[in-house]
Amino acid sequence: MKQRIKKIFSNVSESIDAIILKNSSEPFIDKNFFYTISLEHGLFEGCSAVLYPEGNIDVIVSELESESAKKSDNNIKIYKKQKDFYEMLRETIKSSKNIGLNFNCITLKDFLKFEKELPNKNFVDISSTLMKTRMVKDELEIKKIRKATEIVDKAMLKIPEVVHEEMYEYELAAEINNLIQKNGAGGIAFDTISSFGKNTAEPHYSHGKTKLKDGDFVLCDFGACYERYNSDITRTFVFGKASEKQKNMHNTVLKAQKIGFDKIKSGIEAHFVHDSVNEFINKSKFRGRFIHSTGHSLGLNVHDGGIGFNEESRVLLEKNMVLTVEPGVYIPGFGGVRIEDDIIVKKDGLEILTKSTRDLIEI
Amino acid sequence: MKQRIKKIFSNVSESIDAIILKNSSEPFIDKNFFYTISLEHGLFEGCSAVLYPEGNIDVIVSELESESAKKSDNNIKIYKKQKDFYEMLRETIKSSKNIGLNFNCITLKDFLKFEKELPNKNFVDISSTLMKTRMVKDELEIKKIRKATEIVDKAMLKIPEVVHEEMYEYELAAEINNLIQKNGAGGIAFDTISSFGKNTAEPHYSHGKTKLKDGDFVLCDFGACYERYNSDITRTFVFGKASEKQKNMHNTVLKAQKIGFDKIKSGIEAHFVHDSVNEFINKSKFRGRFIHSTGHSLGLNVHDGGIGFNEESRVLLEKNMVLTVEPGVYIPGFGGVRIEDDIIVKKDGLEILTKSTRDLIEI
Repeated sequence: MKQRIKKIFSNVSESIDAIILKNSSEPFIDKNFFYTISLEHGLFEGCSAVLYPEGNIDVIVSELESESAKKSDNNIKIYKKQKDFYEMLRETIKSSKNIGLNFNCITLKDFLKFEKELPNKNFVDISSTLMKTRMVKDELEIKKIRKATEIVDKAMLKIPEVVHEEMYEYELAAEINNLIQKNGAGGIAFDTISSFGKNTAEPHYSHGKTKLKDGDFVLCDFGACYERYNSDITRTFVFGKASEKQKNMHNTVLKAQKIGFDKIKSGIEAHFVHDSVNEFINKSKFRGRFIHSTGHSLGLNVHDGGIGFNEESRVLLEKNMVLTVEPGVYIPGFGGVRIEDDIIVKKDGLEILTKSTRDLIEI
Repeated sequence: MKQRIKKIFSNVSESIDAIILKNSSEPFIDKNFFYTISLEHGLFEGCSAVLYPEGNIDVIVSELESESAKKSDNNIKIYKKQKDFYEMLRETIKSSKNIGLNFNCITLKDFLKFEKELPNKNFVDISSTLMKTRMVKDELEIKKIRKATEIVDKAMLKIPEVVHEEMYEYELAAEINNLIQKNGAGGIAFDTISSFGKNTAEPHYSHGKTKLKDGDFVLCDFGACYERYNSDITRTFVFGKASEKQKNMHNTVLKAQKIGFDKIKSGIEAHFVHDSVNEFINKSKFRGRFIHSTGHSLGLNVHDGGIGFNEESRVLLEKNMVLTVEPGVYIPGFGGVRIEDDIIVKKDGLEILTKSTRDLIEI
């Protein structure tokens, strides 16, 4: 992980002596902690990592996490009580004046505590540096994401088999999660979306007690988490025979996604991908029905930050960035279609990691 | 939810005109958002709730969440772009000067943005008020937690059936998660812990590629999330015949838990429960092997905050608080035992919600 720490410091524009990554209580855990320390197990609430420019690291952990922490080859300090934590941290950074913090992940409460307990330090926001560093993935990260995408492909292939008449949305979610985990994932990447019928018009609906009816859209949006790295895939099926309107929606989204794929290559601004997709949908009969961005960066977080296919992102695409491409159209009261794949940016194009068929499947 | 909002304001000691709850990106979502707005579905990233003393609420949501948000009977404002969000928020709180914020959940980045975009406001930390308000559960909350505990009991009952020779930890996690979801949970409450053998000595180990061996401890710590409310249970089994040492560990933890149960009733200080449990373990041959607190508050968060059975908590137990009681002993290189149940504080004692047997089961 030394290389990653050095990469972070090389991206910082301000002069800093050390970086503190501070976890609060679940879910307020900074994923950069796991970017810089390779630890497969453990929650690490209330723990901190202190990073130094030459790539070294001190890890301050609670007794509760000490066994898990000892599995890394870093310098581990174990505290028993809350007040010992700050004593240890003060001692650890006593010769550092300018301290980088991740303003995106530290809670205001923790920051005020830092100001009080670590006096005479100059705290610098390095959140954009951390995001920038993590936007381009290294070989090990890509290997893990690739594995996570293989798992969701295997799960997606089984969906037409597991969906059955009178099924409830929550039952399908249980099946999907089981498929993900049986195929070797550490867990699911996020709350699985398995929505039926008009519920598919809510992009962030997860799953409820709605029963499957003939002719329903079946929207499945899920991800696998493999060694803390995530994948994220969506397919929209029809249960029974698809109507012309359903076919039309699906076809429009599929074409929109293809337009997105075709624009992606190293060197172009990210918004350009979204603009092209959005323009295409707005020229179709589904004008105004695409209500989110075209995609997000993917990695330790499902929304990895720093870059996304949205109208505001001026960031240039670079080789080995990993993003999703997920256009959709949503008609309240009727339903929605979304198709989502994970891609790696290449010099002259892209590689699509998720291989599941994108054709409309009637179950 | 009007009652809950009024309850929050009645607990605030400072004079405030309104409260803003601000969600950042997943997982930095403030659960108080769902405490005050009943919304079963939706992620609500980047959304805000503005609460007023008389119990009213304004909800500012992105277009992406608008369909999900419309299912509540609150005043919904929908923004399209990030800059519109702050315009809407400025307009919404224009007549409010003193604004309560949850310093525990707002990121430093969002707070600095608030200071810039909402000038001339006085921001007040109400994090402890929010925790205090949520410590005592109302009828609807208890109903949901009860349902979540029933689900984990059903799952726990099946574990001796699903565990088999040569099983991997991750396979057992998949089985458990499936049992939780098939029994009607919206999802799992947290990353399921299903650890074998010496891995059980790491309290926050989740599950990995370790294969089950004869004589191993099998530690299962999991929870169900039902309509956003959580349960949390742990049992430790032995695969095969338990050794004397294993029986001894289990028996010590079981007795420690009983001591904890016996201390719990309305009116006592929370630390007293932990002290009694800890003292008992420290007088046994497992002195120093209990390395975490005896329990935590449970609700919308798995660790609901505000109160816990730890040596520092001076909070008085009150009727209808819901907490876990989870002593454990951990021997690095050998293994660990933890037994955890969810309880409601009653006037003269407690009700144990989780009903699974606490006897040592040899699978």
